[in-house]
Amino acid sequence: MEGKVEHNHHHDHPCVEIAMEIHKVETPPKRSSLQKLKNRLKETFFPDDPLRQFKGQSTKQKWLLGFQYIFPILQWGPDYNLNLLKSDVVSGLTIASLAIPQGISYAKLANLPPIVGLYSSFVPPLVYAVLGSSRDLAVGPVSIASLLMGSMLRQEVSPAQDPLLFLQLAFTSTFFAGLFQASLGFLRLGFIIDFLSKATLIGFMAGAAIIVSLQQLKALLGITHFTKEMGLVPVMSSVFHNTKEWSWQTILMGFCFLVFLLVTRHISIKKPKLFWVSAGAPLLSVILSTLIVFAFKAERHGISVIGKLEQGLNPPSWNMLHFHGSHIGLVLKTGLITGIISLTEGIAVGRTFAALKNYQVDGNKEMIAIGVMNVVGSTTSCYITTGAFSRSAVNHNAGARTAVSNIIMAVTVMVTLLFLMPLFQYTPNLVLGAIIVTAVIGLIDIPAAYQIWKVDKFDFVVMLCAFFGVIFISVQEGLALAVGISIFKMVLQMTRPKTVVLGNIPGTDIFRNRDQYKDAVSVPGFLILSIQAPINFANSNYLNDRILRWIQDYEEEEETKRHSGLRFVVLDLAAVSAIDTNGVTFVQELRRVLEKKGVELALVNPVGEVMEKLQKADGTHDMLQPNSLFLTVGEAVSSLFSSMKSVSSHV
Amino acid sequence: MEGKVEHNHHHDHPCVEIAMEIHKVETPPKRSSLQKLKNRLKETFFPDDPLRQFKGQSTKQKWLLGFQYIFPILQWGPDYNLNLLKSDVVSGLTIASLAIPQGISYAKLANLPPIVGLYSSFVPPLVYAVLGSSRDLAVGPVSIASLLMGSMLRQEVSPAQDPLLFLQLAFTSTFFAGLFQASLGFLRLGFIIDFLSKATLIGFMAGAAIIVSLQQLKALLGITHFTKEMGLVPVMSSVFHNTKEWSWQTILMGFCFLVFLLVTRHISIKKPKLFWVSAGAPLLSVILSTLIVFAFKAERHGISVIGKLEQGLNPPSWNMLHFHGSHIGLVLKTGLITGIISLTEGIAVGRTFAALKNYQVDGNKEMIAIGVMNVVGSTTSCYITTGAFSRSAVNHNAGARTAVSNIIMAVTVMVTLLFLMPLFQYTPNLVLGAIIVTAVIGLIDIPAAYQIWKVDKFDFVVMLCAFFGVIFISVQEGLALAVGISIFKMVLQMTRPKTVVLGNIPGTDIFRNRDQYKDAVSVPGFLILSIQAPINFANSNYLNDRILRWIQDYEEEEETKRHSGLRFVVLDLAAVSAIDTNGVTFVQELRRVLEKKGVELALVNPVGEVMEKLQKADGTHDMLQPNSLFLTVGEAVSSLFSSMKSVSSHV
Repeated sequence: MEGKVEHNHHHDHPCVEIAMEIHKVETPPKRSSLQKLKNRLKETFFPDDPLRQFKGQSTKQKWLLGFQYIFPILQWGPDYNLNLLKSDVVSGLTIASLAIPQGISYAKLANLPPIVGLYSSFVPPLVYAVLGSSRDLAVGPVSIASLLMGSMLRQEVSPAQDPLLFLQLAFTSTFFAGLFQASLGFLRLGFIIDFLSKATLIGFMAGAAIIVSLQQLKALLGITHFTKEMGLVPVMSSVFHNTKEWSWQTILMGFCFLVFLLVTRHISIKKPKLFWVSAGAPLLSVILSTLIVFAFKAERHGISVIGKLEQGLNPPSWNMLHFHGSHIGLVLKTGLITGIISLTEGIAVGRTFAALKNYQVDGNKEMIAIGVMNVVGSTTSCYITTGAFSRSAVNHNAGARTAVSNIIMAVTVMVTLLFLMPLFQYTPNLVLGAIIVTAVIGLIDIPAAYQIWKVDKFDFVVMLCAFFGVIFISVQEGLALAVGISIFKMVLQMTRPKTVVLGNIPGTDIFRNRDQYKDAVSVPGFLILSIQAPINFANSNYLNDRILRWIQDYEEEEETKRHSGLRFVVLDLAAVSAIDTNGVTFVQELRRVLEKKGVELALVNPVGEVMEKLQKADGTHDMLQPNSLFLTVGEAVSSLFSSMKSVSSHV
Repeated sequence: MEGKVEHNHHHDHPCVEIAMEIHKVETPPKRSSLQKLKNRLKETFFPDDPLRQFKGQSTKQKWLLGFQYIFPILQWGPDYNLNLLKSDVVSGLTIASLAIPQGISYAKLANLPPIVGLYSSFVPPLVYAVLGSSRDLAVGPVSIASLLMGSMLRQEVSPAQDPLLFLQLAFTSTFFAGLFQASLGFLRLGFIIDFLSKATLIGFMAGAAIIVSLQQLKALLGITHFTKEMGLVPVMSSVFHNTKEWSWQTILMGFCFLVFLLVTRHISIKKPKLFWVSAGAPLLSVILSTLIVFAFKAERHGISVIGKLEQGLNPPSWNMLHFHGSHIGLVLKTGLITGIISLTEGIAVGRTFAALKNYQVDGNKEMIAIGVMNVVGSTTSCYITTGAFSRSAVNHNAGARTAVSNIIMAVTVMVTLLFLMPLFQYTPNLVLGAIIVTAVIGLIDIPAAYQIWKVDKFDFVVMLCAFFGVIFISVQEGLALAVGISIFKMVLQMTRPKTVVLGNIPGTDIFRNRDQYKDAVSVPGFLILSIQAPINFANSNYLNDRILRWIQDYEEEEETKRHSGLRFVVLDLAAVSAIDTNGVTFVQELRRVLEKKGVELALVNPVGEVMEKLQKADGTHDMLQPNSLFLTVGEAVSSLFSSMKSVSSHV
């Protein structure tokens, strides 16, 4: 044991001394496969442990909590008071003034009758108020889901030639979207929306905003023969091929209202306290423009107006749902895609405001709420709705305290539907166009794009793919492209995990990446590698090649620097979070190959699962002998170093 | 300062003292985005650094090395000598005796004329001998690729009704398979075959072996009206619905030869030195059975025979390749799938024997060799070929030293084609069936399946999916199912990364998983978490939920145990190998949320990339202050602990 003493002299440091006191790598406590499966399922589907609150409660209490869980209104309802009501009335009226013009506008964006937009601002908010757990979400139709539904359904059915069928398909798609959303929540598969990364969403929303704005050129320029396509190229060519249809009256009036709306928007952005400026502007614009048209009989001078709207509340529409027939595939696809997109918006908005007010929104519960709201909506003449970002922001700024603001909004919309519909007869389409453009322009988030560019170039590429895919190919394909690239990157990362060479930070027993820590020094005779990913079928061949190359590198370096030959390869497995059968074979093979070269393999700090699988695979426990398995790199190096010395001193 | 002293007494150990000497977390040296991209591309496509050997060589030498790289025969050819030739002749003749009957049998499996099997054992081995880098690979038709090609092409074209078109499609598929294989190698996309995990392959091969064996019931029972389908159910029903077609002469003779072949196979497995017993048995069976049929005129007693075969070498077939027409889609798909499957077999076989003899096989180079071999083959009447496992094992056992054994085999096949073809006229189909069954039975690897069961239950499920998918649905869909599930598991693992709570191992400054290390103790006021995966869009929401739940757990535990409130959350990022914009936002948000709770967030040991991105995202560098960024958990805990105590002592 002379070598050991020598070694200790060499590294004359108390920490190394302590490191010599070798600690055992422990196996996690035995659990059966069933328990492991149960655990994994729990982590996959119930990471938030929704049943936690039920633990240790009386049966009665459990029922009460259960009802409160399903209907969050029962949680806050009993404590509701006049103070809260005051705030909610103010905010409810404010968002109603925004919801009415936006509802009409978005319905037109989806190629649906304007009144459907109002129907959709009446029933769904009531449903959400009962089921939803966000206090700030303002529910109603939104631009992107409207655009998506309109453009997808138009692939097969023309809204101009067959408006009834189109409407039926829209309701059916809404039904499936709701069903799909609720199932995602119920089956706790909410993580599916996580696959829309921030970069994807920012690119997608910006592209969609441009597509939506381009569509408004029809109303803003007064063109009557407008292309039915959505892409940048066909729309621009349609606009410039129909210059003789341009109406100067429409352009002038549209321009004025657009500038007015943009200015009010700008004011509210600069001073959030003046939120009511931008919140009230759309309704004011509608009233003003309607009065102008009415006063000057402008509809006779080429300014197109909405026209007569029926009065009355939502008619039932369950008899309009189509569950068979030739369009069922389209309807399912539309439901799926608009469902996911609107869910993503709703959840993201809910989470944003919950974080601001420091409460938590349960993603899966929200999905059920939004899903049920859409299913109910589809039977009461509503098309797809969700929590809208712009309206929720106004709601929040206007001081909303609970979901009652949604109820107030719904009541206001109801009054409108019952008594005020004739007033919209002379509302010009151009003002709806201006309202839409102003609303969607906020979806183009340049600072966020710049931040992405700064932080992660690959994410920036994903963003660009989504953006250009949406404006040049199509809304849904652009989105699919971006999601595909994001997942491809993730898989590629898995097939090419990082392996880094560690070196000793002088004066410590800490080992770190030699590229990152320039002080870190190599230990003669040792190649210390850290693998930073699960080892599985997709990367075990790569890891094998890569480690052999590290060894070659070492040997070449050795020739030039004349330091001692390679004796030990130390694999730091701390970052290997899982391993599969291919991975286990890889470790065994590596050990065998190294042995033939006269090099010993030592493993450091495997996590529980990896440790277990290596043990099971390795019947004779060759690999997991105390002299080839260590708790820290420091202990591995000092122990192996001293064993090497003691061997050489015996020779 | 009383608290601090107490703490030190509690952890009365020099290492904690030393850990107080805080080390800085370093940022990796600055590199431009271009450099990073270059580096990442290099790691992705050239992990083996193929140009390494060219470095620092003279121009002439570089050319020589280049030629040797493309034609490995130039590497070993000059040193070839009589000794090597002796070994290669013995092994070449041995594998020829196996290749001739197997070639005829596998061609029948692919619904092709038997002679195509012999053609395919002549040209491709010659091409491989020049281009291939494995010394043991015996090239020729193989069972699974034959089965796949036969069954896929039969979906559109009947080999019985339109044999010429079927043959043309087979050659064209082979051409595309070769083109595809060579491109994979050339574009260095070889890692695509890594997606066929060991579990998938074992399940798939076992399933395919059963499907192949079932097909042989036609020949072994003498059924003439046999189903054209492949699945277990239709084949068994076909067999038992045609019992009156069963021929006892065929069954008896088939059974005898099958038993003979299985016994010889068993002998060779038990004593590898007797490899020639199983290697010679197929040829002996063919000769014996042919003699029996010829002597007893058995073909008149219901024993079907191969019939007349043409004499002569491979006719050219480039005029039979179809690059357009209605079947092009099928041909491309067949080429792709058979190409990948045969590549997987060839590479796996090459790697296995290279590991045994301790030399290295370059995967991408092998792909090019196998691809070129198939492209050349498709123009000379050969269908898809690759390195066959059983024949390569015989080759290895027979003492093959270089690829010359392939040349010897090809020459033997050539002699057969030129002079011996009439001898096969009376060879009964039943013996071919028996040869196929004996060959494929080795693909069912029960011990490997048991090992998978022992090590990884999920992999076992994947294996079962491949197995049952192949035997009940279809060969290609079973494979696709298993690959899909493997990738799904990988993605799921990514969306649900492990987070573990670390505790201090008493008497050290080491922190480890408290589940795995029962001794590890928590530090009051600290929640120390290790995240074990890249943080990205797919998991940042989950991580957020999960960490908040850990905090809840801590707080509940706190109430019962009455220890001090949570003051610090320490995130060990050592195992976080990458981060994207969503991940960066997650860390920032977490910090904000914790701050509202009065809890500080400290990060430990971020790797270079993560560190860089956090820095870029965090303009004010709030997050990366020395008091919230540490090199080790030990240092983080002791530093924060002392700062906490000093604050409280001031109060």
